[in-house]
Amino acid sequence: MHRRLQLDWSVGYCTDPGTAAEKRVPAMVPGAVQLDWARAEGWGDYNYADNYKNYAWMEDVCWSYVAKLRFPELKADERLIFVCGGVDYRFLVKLRGEIIHEQEGMFTPFEIDLTQRAANGDELEILIFPAPKRKGAPRGRKEADQSCKPAVSYGWDWHPRLVPLGIWDDTYLEIRPACHIKDCEVLYSLDENLQQALVTADIALSGKGEAKIQWEFYDRNENPVFRRDYPCEYCGDNNVIHMEEVVKKPRLWWPNGQGEPVLYRSVIRLVDNNGNLLDQKVSRVGFRRVRLVMHPGAWDYPEESPKTRSRPPITLEINGRQIFCKGSNWVNPEIFPGIITEETYRPLIELAREANMNIFRCWGGAIVNKDAFFDLCDEMGIMVWQEFPLSCNNYVGTPEYLKILDQESRSIIRRLRSHACVVIWCGGNELFNSWSGMTDQSPALRLLNRNCYDMDPERPFLMTSPLMGMGHGYYRFRYPDGRDVFQAMPREGFTAYTEFGVPSPSDAEYLKNFIPEEELFPPRPGTSWEEHHAFNAWESPDWLALDVIEHYFGKTDSLELLVERGQWIQAEGLRFIFEEARRQKPVCSMALNWCYNEPWPTAANNSIISWRTRPKPAYYTVKAACRPVLASARIAKFVWEEGELFSAELWILNDSPECVPAGRVKAILRMGEKEILLLEWDYPEIAANTNLPGPVVRCYLPHGETDRIKLVLRVDGHPEMDSEYILPYRAKSETN
Amino acid sequence: MHRRLQLDWSVGYCTDPGTAAEKRVPAMVPGAVQLDWARAEGWGDYNYADNYKNYAWMEDVCWSYVAKLRFPELKADERLIFVCGGVDYRFLVKLRGEIIHEQEGMFTPFEIDLTQRAANGDELEILIFPAPKRKGAPRGRKEADQSCKPAVSYGWDWHPRLVPLGIWDDTYLEIRPACHIKDCEVLYSLDENLQQALVTADIALSGKGEAKIQWEFYDRNENPVFRRDYPCEYCGDNNVIHMEEVVKKPRLWWPNGQGEPVLYRSVIRLVDNNGNLLDQKVSRVGFRRVRLVMHPGAWDYPEESPKTRSRPPITLEINGRQIFCKGSNWVNPEIFPGIITEETYRPLIELAREANMNIFRCWGGAIVNKDAFFDLCDEMGIMVWQEFPLSCNNYVGTPEYLKILDQESRSIIRRLRSHACVVIWCGGNELFNSWSGMTDQSPALRLLNRNCYDMDPERPFLMTSPLMGMGHGYYRFRYPDGRDVFQAMPREGFTAYTEFGVPSPSDAEYLKNFIPEEELFPPRPGTSWEEHHAFNAWESPDWLALDVIEHYFGKTDSLELLVERGQWIQAEGLRFIFEEARRQKPVCSMALNWCYNEPWPTAANNSIISWRTRPKPAYYTVKAACRPVLASARIAKFVWEEGELFSAELWILNDSPECVPAGRVKAILRMGEKEILLLEWDYPEIAANTNLPGPVVRCYLPHGETDRIKLVLRVDGHPEMDSEYILPYRAKSETN
Repeated sequence: MHRRLQLDWSVGYCTDPGTAAEKRVPAMVPGAVQLDWARAEGWGDYNYADNYKNYAWMEDVCWSYVAKLRFPELKADERLIFVCGGVDYRFLVKLRGEIIHEQEGMFTPFEIDLTQRAANGDELEILIFPAPKRKGAPRGRKEADQSCKPAVSYGWDWHPRLVPLGIWDDTYLEIRPACHIKDCEVLYSLDENLQQALVTADIALSGKGEAKIQWEFYDRNENPVFRRDYPCEYCGDNNVIHMEEVVKKPRLWWPNGQGEPVLYRSVIRLVDNNGNLLDQKVSRVGFRRVRLVMHPGAWDYPEESPKTRSRPPITLEINGRQIFCKGSNWVNPEIFPGIITEETYRPLIELAREANMNIFRCWGGAIVNKDAFFDLCDEMGIMVWQEFPLSCNNYVGTPEYLKILDQESRSIIRRLRSHACVVIWCGGNELFNSWSGMTDQSPALRLLNRNCYDMDPERPFLMTSPLMGMGHGYYRFRYPDGRDVFQAMPREGFTAYTEFGVPSPSDAEYLKNFIPEEELFPPRPGTSWEEHHAFNAWESPDWLALDVIEHYFGKTDSLELLVERGQWIQAEGLRFIFEEARRQKPVCSMALNWCYNEPWPTAANNSIISWRTRPKPAYYTVKAACRPVLASARIAKFVWEEGELFSAELWILNDSPECVPAGRVKAILRMGEKEILLLEWDYPEIAANTNLPGPVVRCYLPHGETDRIKLVLRVDGHPEMDSEYILPYRAKSETN
Repeated sequence: MHRRLQLDWSVGYCTDPGTAAEKRVPAMVPGAVQLDWARAEGWGDYNYADNYKNYAWMEDVCWSYVAKLRFPELKADERLIFVCGGVDYRFLVKLRGEIIHEQEGMFTPFEIDLTQRAANGDELEILIFPAPKRKGAPRGRKEADQSCKPAVSYGWDWHPRLVPLGIWDDTYLEIRPACHIKDCEVLYSLDENLQQALVTADIALSGKGEAKIQWEFYDRNENPVFRRDYPCEYCGDNNVIHMEEVVKKPRLWWPNGQGEPVLYRSVIRLVDNNGNLLDQKVSRVGFRRVRLVMHPGAWDYPEESPKTRSRPPITLEINGRQIFCKGSNWVNPEIFPGIITEETYRPLIELAREANMNIFRCWGGAIVNKDAFFDLCDEMGIMVWQEFPLSCNNYVGTPEYLKILDQESRSIIRRLRSHACVVIWCGGNELFNSWSGMTDQSPALRLLNRNCYDMDPERPFLMTSPLMGMGHGYYRFRYPDGRDVFQAMPREGFTAYTEFGVPSPSDAEYLKNFIPEEELFPPRPGTSWEEHHAFNAWESPDWLALDVIEHYFGKTDSLELLVERGQWIQAEGLRFIFEEARRQKPVCSMALNWCYNEPWPTAANNSIISWRTRPKPAYYTVKAACRPVLASARIAKFVWEEGELFSAELWILNDSPECVPAGRVKAILRMGEKEILLLEWDYPEIAANTNLPGPVVRCYLPHGETDRIKLVLRVDGHPEMDSEYILPYRAKSETN
């Protein structure tokens, strides 16, 4: 079998590729040159204050990784392979100073056969060029618009400018038997009625010799489904073997909340004539069919003549069932992708599952995640809308750019297409908007459609987000016209809300980790608050939104109170939007807040989980809003005053595949300790995947000695359906 | 050189492909089995009355073409090739009863090498299967939704149900030298500044022997641009030769009205070592760059948050200049494509050029035209929006359908991509509308985008028409809400009007050719008027629109008067829409009326030219509305009464590449012999490709003894810019 040998790397920099590095420091692989250098130099944490600025020069030099090859003597039938999961971004590989590979693009792994080419002690070098920047581009994301480097690294409104370089995925030497499996892919096609799957395995073999292939397929209880032997009479180099088996009545993979994310397991073994195991590939298969369909009633629009087209489809249908997509926009969980591991992903994805989410939109500004991300999403039933690395730019289709995009997109499709979780390919983020200027005619997007259709024709492809009919943004609780989201959202009629946000500051305790004490309060531009995006990160108001907090609550005199108020706004704002999007079903079929996580500690941001895994209060209100079945209230506005006519529409929301039995909801107004029963509503049985609008609660607000009121919806015998909305309240005596 | 030998075909039918035809009749090739049979049987003209109904049975039987091979003895170095331009639709080719070729699809020509395979006197048979019909489909166009057969043949609101079958393009035997040019394609790429063209020729050779290639390239004055010899050291079978030459400062091809449609000529000769000419391919090249771009101001839309996308681009840019597209929807000029020749096309395309048109939309319901059509459009500067054969159906992406579509679309792209005139590929007609139900995710459309990108990446591709933002329809002068097009059109804000129509009856004299005398007046449903689409062809009102004519003019008591009034409505309606679309520039950049021509004599239709080449009055008003520079009036409505306040906005329209010198317009109201000068307007110089709005004419309409008024715009010294609008008028004494 294969033996992996780790290499002992050092790294140094030089100003041009022809010169040698003056100094070398130990390198962690995978990792990033910036991290190695900072560690060796004893620099402070780049997450603290404005330390990241020290890294600025590092994007403009060449970096040289060097390792001495050390390996045991090879047997006659063994091969020595250099395996590299990914180098960020443009690089050469040299053996004893001679170039043996060159590449641009971080998403294309490569292998180099060193057998009879390398000797023990030989020097292997990976020479990385400076970070790509289009000539003449202004500083910022536009520098990335002729490369497949994630644009976020060049600075974003929640991401410092820090452009990683280095070996960013698993990289090692491997000794393999001459006869081994070079490549193996297990895919399937389902029949129209989902009653039968044709499972296919395509295997590329290397080396020579007689051997046979054993294919075993197990269900989720590890019971064998089939086992077949395939003789390979002559196992020649690049011999490709195609195998097919039928699985009848497969258990289907379902997204979180819709059923189990059932995975089967495929084991493919290469065995020689003496029964010795030469190689083995294990993979998992989730059987499911995915389509993007028009929502019910979509064809009626537009009614008038002359006709234009109906809005494009964005309703996800999984296994024939239309699914309401509840989820979030996933961004890179670290600035440096090289230090991301399964343990980075696992707790974040578990939090999404616990929050009743069923989809992540993996945003095109960031990296395409490592395999572990998709494995975990497969397991947890979290669907993935995967974008290619294009975002907010006009990626002009020069031959040079199209060549890299072709290579990188093919590598990405090839790597991810076997994952059940991936349900949508998308060209990238906000490409059809004025600040990008791309169109349906842009060669880059036509190329991506071509590649997806060629390599993965059954998975839907969108050129970008938003498309016509989709709401994208806003990122404010309070609109420029003074309305709050409670007032604004019910007037929208979008088919999907692919981004929307309400910002909040991070926890007070957490802020102290990266904002120097003397800068903590009051927050001011020009301090670490600004470096961490609280001020001047995007258009006014800032992510800290001091003026919004002040508008609703008046002056704030402590950090703790400021944070509490800002997080309250975010929590109730996002709760409202998620529930409102669900109420707009079936025209609307998707709600994805911007954003889920963040790559470093922001002082204020739209994220609902602070870096690395620290949920904000909004995480819990979103979790509540995403429950499969709940009592919900469309409350007329956010802030209330004594004597006003309070009003809220009651609903039962149900996006589960089960019907909801008849029941009773009590609507209660709580003011301090006082509870006022507003009404009781006996609702009938509600069909699966269906919402029910109910009565409108109305009452004049009495006087109370409190700064908040709560609308409590209590469902008899079903506390899991209860809801509670917390709203600012001003008694007359206080306001006058 | 090549020698063509025509074959002497006969044709007969059988009910299944295993049996022999009982009777054979002489066949014209190219042609159609229906025409051969009708000729032999002495049937009446299928264009007369309801004679076409006799042909109904012919779509459901097999048809067998048979010819005896007759050819001179071949020299040792000669080959005998059977060349077939196209068979409609699914067929086998048999030689002495043995199947040597099978195919589905009329747009893929084929060649069969019969050398040493066929003997003199052998029987060659083409056995054509019944017309394709999807099992279970209702009668009509849906029968065609799993094939690449043009859907129009299954019946349309202006086309009888008559489904052609047969050999529909040039088909013959050819004797060629062993060494000949099997395939030759001359293409080019222009540099960004249009200062240099790289011309490429790809040549596939057949046969063996030493030879050389001479490539000559001539400008439009037949002056040589270059001449090069390419030796082919070994001219082996399937030897492919790639040649490249640079043409500096090429004269560009321009659409009609924008400059000259300059064509260069390429001559490629294959010459043996003794200087003997073995083969020769002549082709033409028009250098031009085509892009679809956003119109000025497009990115401002939509303004509000959350953002959706901006409307997709539909402004054609030729050689860097945005062109206003003025043209029409081209349909098949005959029911039977086999009888279409260059002489069918030429007068129709000449009429379009004379009418100042610069584009045809070749509608997806009909055939893709023969080569002569595109040659003529190249010569006359008429751009072509070419659709694939999909229309008004949901072409579900079954593997069987996608296979045929892949083959047929590749053949179409390969055949047309060298034509300068072709500026847009489009998936088909009205596919994103409710009656079709296709979407961006439909595999058939993703396949077409893929094939166009693979084979012809620089030419824009649209999935269908209409897309978001485009107006498509209406086909009425009077809207259901009572407004006329003068009132309705100025309120639209579409980016393109890809279809719009106003129907009219055909000329009275012409009607007598195909409507029996006793049915002529008054027109009634259930007569030949209905068979020829005047009644019950589309949704009410009928194409004859008797109620509309009566609404504006009252009862009509003669055929001649009925025709005059119906044609008046069409003429002024289309004039208004064309001019109004031009006034809406630059948001709007395209006006294409439905439709230009027709495949048989309709009694009433939206066409502006009756079959075959008989312009209706609307042709002349459209011609006037499409002049590069004209004085134009946005008249408030169509019908006027004595005492009403007449009003009309004056404009100068200019879509030419030249500026318009300053001048003076007189607006004159003519009532019978009386002329009233309403105003004089001194307009300033107007920039190229720019419109100028002017004053609004207003006056109370005086009494007059007339049934019509004319608004005359007379431009001092520029009669070519004069316009005249004719409007119904009712004096008070008459109406009271």
